[in-house]
Formats: sequence, C-alpha cells, structure tokens
Amino acid sequence: MEQELIEKFTKIVGDAYAITDQALIAPYLLEQRGLFHGKTPLLLRPSSTAEISSIMRLASQTCTPIVPQGGNTGLVGGQQPDESGNSVLLSMERLNKIRCMNLEGNIAVVEAGVILQDLQKKVDESDRFFPLSLASEGSCQIGGNLSSNAGGTAVLAYGNMRELCLGLEVVLPDGRILDDLRFVKKDNSGYDLKNLFIGAEGTLGVITAAVLKLFPRPKGKAVALVGLCSPAKALGFLSLAQSHGVGMLTGFELMGKFSLQMALDYKMCEKSPLEHEHEWYVLINISSLQSEDEALSVLSIILEEALKDTVIEDAVIAQSLKQQDFFWQLRESISSAQKLAGGSIKHDIAVPTASIPDFIAEATLIVEDIIPGARVVCFGHMGDGNLHYNITQPIGADSAAFLRLWAQINHSIHSLVMHYKGTFSAEHGIGQLKREELRTFKSPVALDIMQGIKKTLDPLGIMNPRKIL
Amino acid sequence: MEQELIEKFTKIVGDAYAITDQALIAPYLLEQRGLFHGKTPLLLRPSSTAEISSIMRLASQTCTPIVPQGGNTGLVGGQQPDESGNSVLLSMERLNKIRCMNLEGNIAVVEAGVILQDLQKKVDESDRFFPLSLASEGSCQIGGNLSSNAGGTAVLAYGNMRELCLGLEVVLPDGRILDDLRFVKKDNSGYDLKNLFIGAEGTLGVITAAVLKLFPRPKGKAVALVGLCSPAKALGFLSLAQSHGVGMLTGFELMGKFSLQMALDYKMCEKSPLEHEHEWYVLINISSLQSEDEALSVLSIILEEALKDTVIEDAVIAQSLKQQDFFWQLRESISSAQKLAGGSIKHDIAVPTASIPDFIAEATLIVEDIIPGARVVCFGHMGDGNLHYNITQPIGADSAAFLRLWAQINHSIHSLVMHYKGTFSAEHGIGQLKREELRTFKSPVALDIMQGIKKTLDPLGIMNPRKIL
Repeated sequence: MEQELIEKFTKIVGDAYAITDQALIAPYLLEQRGLFHGKTPLLLRPSSTAEISSIMRLASQTCTPIVPQGGNTGLVGGQQPDESGNSVLLSMERLNKIRCMNLEGNIAVVEAGVILQDLQKKVDESDRFFPLSLASEGSCQIGGNLSSNAGGTAVLAYGNMRELCLGLEVVLPDGRILDDLRFVKKDNSGYDLKNLFIGAEGTLGVITAAVLKLFPRPKGKAVALVGLCSPAKALGFLSLAQSHGVGMLTGFELMGKFSLQMALDYKMCEKSPLEHEHEWYVLINISSLQSEDEALSVLSIILEEALKDTVIEDAVIAQSLKQQDFFWQLRESISSAQKLAGGSIKHDIAVPTASIPDFIAEATLIVEDIIPGARVVCFGHMGDGNLHYNITQPIGADSAAFLRLWAQINHSIHSLVMHYKGTFSAEHGIGQLKREELRTFKSPVALDIMQGIKKTLDPLGIMNPRKIL
Repeated sequence: MEQELIEKFTKIVGDAYAITDQALIAPYLLEQRGLFHGKTPLLLRPSSTAEISSIMRLASQTCTPIVPQGGNTGLVGGQQPDESGNSVLLSMERLNKIRCMNLEGNIAVVEAGVILQDLQKKVDESDRFFPLSLASEGSCQIGGNLSSNAGGTAVLAYGNMRELCLGLEVVLPDGRILDDLRFVKKDNSGYDLKNLFIGAEGTLGVITAAVLKLFPRPKGKAVALVGLCSPAKALGFLSLAQSHGVGMLTGFELMGKFSLQMALDYKMCEKSPLEHEHEWYVLINISSLQSEDEALSVLSIILEEALKDTVIEDAVIAQSLKQQDFFWQLRESISSAQKLAGGSIKHDIAVPTASIPDFIAEATLIVEDIIPGARVVCFGHMGDGNLHYNITQPIGADSAAFLRLWAQINHSIHSLVMHYKGTFSAEHGIGQLKREELRTFKSPVALDIMQGIKKTLDPLGIMNPRKIL
C-alpha cells in the first residue's frame, strides 16, 4: 500500500488511531482457532460514524478493500483480512457509546463497538434486560453480533440478534450513511433493508449503530442439570417444559455424555453434579418476571412431571447463584475443553427440532463409518434445533491425518442436514470457512441473487472481500 | 396487447384459466375503497409454480408487466394493475394446496393462494394454531399476507407474517424458481433473502409457497372489554397485563369512544356491554395453553389489580364464546362502520408504544386545527404501537371538500410520526397509495438502495410496476 494512501487514511482518524506497527496490529490478526492468517498494512480505529464515512469514501475512490472487525471472536474468519496484505483493517472498538437508553420504551441506541457484556451490565443497572448471551460475551461487540446475526443460548425465548434489533445505521461502501434508526416494531414502508445488513458479515456496509430492544428484567431464575437416556427423551422433555413454563423457558441446552465429561475435566471437577452417569444431559433455565420462588416452583413442577413420566432419569436444581453459574459454565466451556482433546472437526447445524433424534443417530453412524473411534461432541441449543455436532479425533490418533478428513466429514454431515431441510450454518455464518459449503449447498438461484445484491451495494467489491461470496 | 401474446400466455395455463372477458375480470379489478381503477386485457389463473415460471419467462421475453394478486383485500392498491391496460393480472387463487403439514415439527408448507381462514381451520383441526388474524381473513391469501407482511391483532404475541415464515419459494421476474423452503428457525448461510421478498408487495418476484410456523393450540381464552379514561391509563394497563399475563397476552386493542360508538351503531346494538360511557376502551385477550379456567383466572387478576389501582374504570368479561366473538366483531367492524359516517382520511402509523399518549394528544390538536369538527376515529394494535388514526369528516360537511385535505392532513400526521422515529405505514404497505409519502419520508439513501435492489432482481421492471417505488 502506498505511503500516500496510508497518510490520507491516517488524516481521517488522527495519528494515534492509524496503526502500522505490526506488533500492535498482531492481536487483531490473531484468530482464535488458528485457521486464518490475515495480513494488513494498516489498522484504523475511528471513533465516529462520520470518520467511517470518510474512510469508506476514500476507500471507494482508491479501490481499497476494507475489513470491519468487532471483538474478533467470530468462528468463520469473517473479521480477518486475507493474506494478500491489501486490505485495511477497520476496528470498531472506539464506537463504543450507548447513545441513548429509553427505559419507558424499552429501547437502547447502541454503537457497533460496544461490548455485549458492557451493554448487558448497563441495561441491568437500569432494571432492564438485554437477552443476547454467548460464550464470548465478554469481548464480542454489538456490531459483530449484528453482522453475524448472533445466536447463543437465549434465542429460544428472545430470538437471534435479528429479532432484537429495530433499526440500523450503516455506512455504505461508497461512504453514504443509511440512517434507519427506527424505534418501532412494525414498519411496512418499503423493502426490509435492516435484515439485509444483519448477517451480511460486513460485506454490504459497515453497521455503525443500532436500535436494540430491551426487556423487563427477570426477577429470578432457576437452573437444573438433568440426566436422560436419549435425544428423543430430551425432545419430550422440551415439549413438557414448553407447555408448563409458558413464557418462562429461557434456556434448553442439550449435551452428550462425552461433552459434559470433557467440561467437567476442564473445570477439574472430580464429581458430576448428578449422582450417576447418563447418556445425555439437558441444562434447563426457567426465568420469572415475578420472583425467584416462582421460577423455582415452575421448574420443580416440570421436573416432577418429567420424572413421574420417566421422560428424564434424574435432575439436580442449582442451590445458589454460584451453582447456577457453575452449571452454565460447564455448558459454555465445552468448546474450550474440546481443544485439549486433540483435533476437532466442527459443524454448526440446524435441523427441525423434531428431527434432532433421527439426525443425531444417522450422523453418528456416518462418523463411525468414516472414522472408527472418533468421539462425537454433540451439544447445543436444542430448543432451536441448532446443534454443535463436533467430532474429536480418536484417542491416540494422528491429529493431522484426522483433520485431513474435515472436508469429507463436513460434506457428509451437511448433506444429511440438507435432507432435513436444515442448514450447514445455523449461527456462525459463512466468512472464509464455509464459502465452499455455501457454493455446494446453497441453490444457484439464491447464490445468484446474493451476487447481484453484493454488486449493487458494493460495485467495486471493496467491502470485506472474499467473505461469504 | 397483441392477440398472439395473449395466446402464448393462454397456452401456459389452458383456455379455461386465461380470461379476457371483461365481465369476468371485473371482480378482480374492484378495489374495496374505490380508490384505484386498474385495467387489464388478460387475467391468468395458473395452478402451479411451474406455470408461473413459464408465465414469467414469457413476460420477461416480451417485456410484459405482471401484477400478482391474492385475495384482493390490500388497502394500498398494491394488487391492482394501473390504468394503462398493459399489465397481465396474475391471480394466485388456484395455488391453494397445503403441501404438507408436519405436526411434530409444527410446520406447514402452504401455497400462496390458500385463504388464511382455510389454513387457520385446517390447522385447528390438527390441534395446532396459526396465529395470523385479520379482519379480511375470510378472503385474504397467504401469498398476499407474505407480500404485504401482514400484521393484525395477534402480532403482539406472535409477530407479523415475517416472523411466522421460515422459508419461501419464489418465482423471479425472469422465471427462475428460488427454492428456499427451509424448515429451520436459525440459518446464517448467506444474505437474508426471505425477508427481502416478504413485504415487497410482489415487486421483486412472485411468492408461490412458504414454510409457516404452527403453534400449540390454546386450550382456552378469556376476553374483556375495558373502559378507561385516557391512552396513558391504557399504557399502564398494558404494562400490568404484560407482567401478570406472561406469555398469555394475545390481544390488546385500543379504541376511542367514537370508534366504539360507531361499531355499536353498525352492529345495531342499543346498549354498550359496559354500563357507562368511557373516553377510551381496550379489548384484552388472554389465552391459555392449559385451560379456559386458567385464562379466566389470569384475566380476573389483571382486571382486579387494574381496578384497585384505578388504572381502569370498568370492565366486562365476555360470558360465552358468542360474547367473545361479539366483542371482537365490534373491534373488527370499526373500518366498515366508518364508511357509513362519510369521508374518511386514514393513517396506518406506528410510534413507540410508550409515546402513544403524547402522539394521540398532539395529532388530535393538529387535526382540530386543520379541520374544526372533524371526528377522530382512533383504534388499533396498541401493544405494537400501531394505530389506525383515522379522521371522519365533520357532521354535515361536504365530503369532497373534506377529502381534498387528505394530503395536507397526511403530511402533518406523518411528520409527527417521523418525529417519534415511527412509520407512516405500519402494516398496510405502500402499494400505489403511499408512493408519494415514501418519497417524502424515507431517506434518499434507503430509497436508492431499494431502487438498486429492484433493478437487480427485476431489470426490465415488469414485476408489479409502479408499486412501492
């Protein structure tokens, strides 16, 4: 990149916020799974929508690729520049203001660089609730959550990031600002542009701010870890919980035996919270707007009913906030725990919830056929039909040889998913990692429309290039 | 239109389903408010996606405008051809199959021409529930509901049509078929195309089928008509109902005194269900998945609490299914009743729910200032912030002179709505009626993106031309 261009970009954000020192840039290029090794000559850290508008205007005048980055927690490489070293990296971290919070209207206008956990806390202090909840919430940012249409554990009750957003402010690739910061839930005044930018992984524009929905803060919650014998029983348990806990079921996570065991080992627990071992586990979360007592009483009714009907084998209710947190930490640490067990081939799939038992059975046969001894780490958001169906290498196997089967296993599992009219990317997106899968499994007509939209909004192809498409 | 072209279209659907007799076409050109007087030389009534694909292929080869039409109940003229007489009218009524119903998965795959009420009944027979509910449900069709992103009275609990749809099948303007009939709630595999076609009023393609969400059928409901003194009190009542009826509040409709009186007159009721007259009314609906008793008990708690706190002035609970229906009919007949009271200037607006009291007060001052004696007919989906803020002419005034103020009143009310970050079209869409308002109140950047998308998907401009844009 020519020095003159770097200086022009620098002038927009100021010397202190245009970084060319590779040592300072390095953390932004670190990708947590080690799958992508991007390069950039320049990291920009603007502080306002106006600055981003100027950056994009200059980028479009000079045909410079721009890669927006939030908290750098994405799992598909969408936030990383490619290895050409031609792209400018645009960190959103300084757009970190909550512009306003309207408590009566249950609305917050939030800039893209606000860290999710910071928003959760701020909202909590105002006796409201922002439900999005992810393992990476301590560092991921609202802009990234929107650009990846983040999911997580609260989707069951509150929806994806898409459902939590009422309006957007977006800087287009040519620098123009789309101000669509609407405050209303219903709006039929023309094409739905909001949902086009949400989930577009920064390939159509830079989301700079959003109007987010707030909710009444639950007054209490109750959490239980439940042991059961099969995914079919888990499905029955889900249905029971839904009918007895109307409006109160706020978490329903499935975990296979091996997933929980890995999490317990990772947390260095010698003893499981449940007395005996079970083939499958469910982490269930009940929230009440009234009181902790109500949450506890509804959870108890659900568990009693389920035990009576032998839908579940055993259950333990968390006895303190600390224990509630611990149960959730077990669930959230499965991904980290998996790293210690060797090579891992991952799937972020969704199938209709009712098909989960069949899917797991069939998928596991496929895996055992291709890699005898491979260990299935199956866990996830059962209530949404969304499973992280991961495969850990057989004990003692060669990790590199195992990982060479990535594409073959992916293809087989994703083909099965398509048979169920499901998806090969339920919540993590496409980024760089799943571009091939997109070409394989998305209909050519859909791909063509996507290409057309990309070309319309970003005719120069400078907006996060070679991501998704 | 040349005879040769008419014959080619006729060949696709068969002689019986290509209508050129203007007497037979007339009902399709009748627009319920009498605002639009479209013409067409040819009405096509295809029976399959394949036929529609052939129609669109021929249309794009010959640059023939196509206007898709569902149940012809739209309120903005989106389903009507223009007066040029160049467009072919495409009735979807014969695509009326429910392709499949997956009860375990709570999913139905439904063709565009299925009448909403037919779907509701079919689903009800299977002990499930499809929540979309509109005054026109006896004749409106699923394709029209999708193309207009229909709202109605159940949005509060279940969302708009957008939220009720998991996937679409769409015939593009060039005849290609987009098969995006997904069965899952979570899908981050590329741009969100579904939401682009939903609410596009047939200007980007022809929706031919959809995957719709089904819900557990409520076992009982309880309905009350409530009298209160102000919109501010109604807001307090809403908040009370939401916190005591978590997951059970399935309707919350506001009606002004004059709205209810008109509905009572229309229904030829001499006596209101409530003993005294009130300035404002709320129709509240509580549903239970367990039993009618539960619904009734929750409603009673809400009403007692509200009476105790003087949030409401009086309430009457419907004592039978018949009376429940009657209360709802009062609400649903306001529009029809309004026709009898003379000229009417209408607004389908949304503002943040918390701003409704202020909005009503300010809007009413505006109206009284422009047209002294005009009568405000204000009613609608308060829980969604969506009001039908209509103006009926002063008693004895000249209707034509009154209606000449349409644009001025619209502009003033819609300007107020924009001040509240709301919308001038909450649920009815743009069609032909609100194209000017769209140009006035939508940001130029948003309009430009919409134009770009239209051009990408429909480069010849044959798909429902001069609607929305």
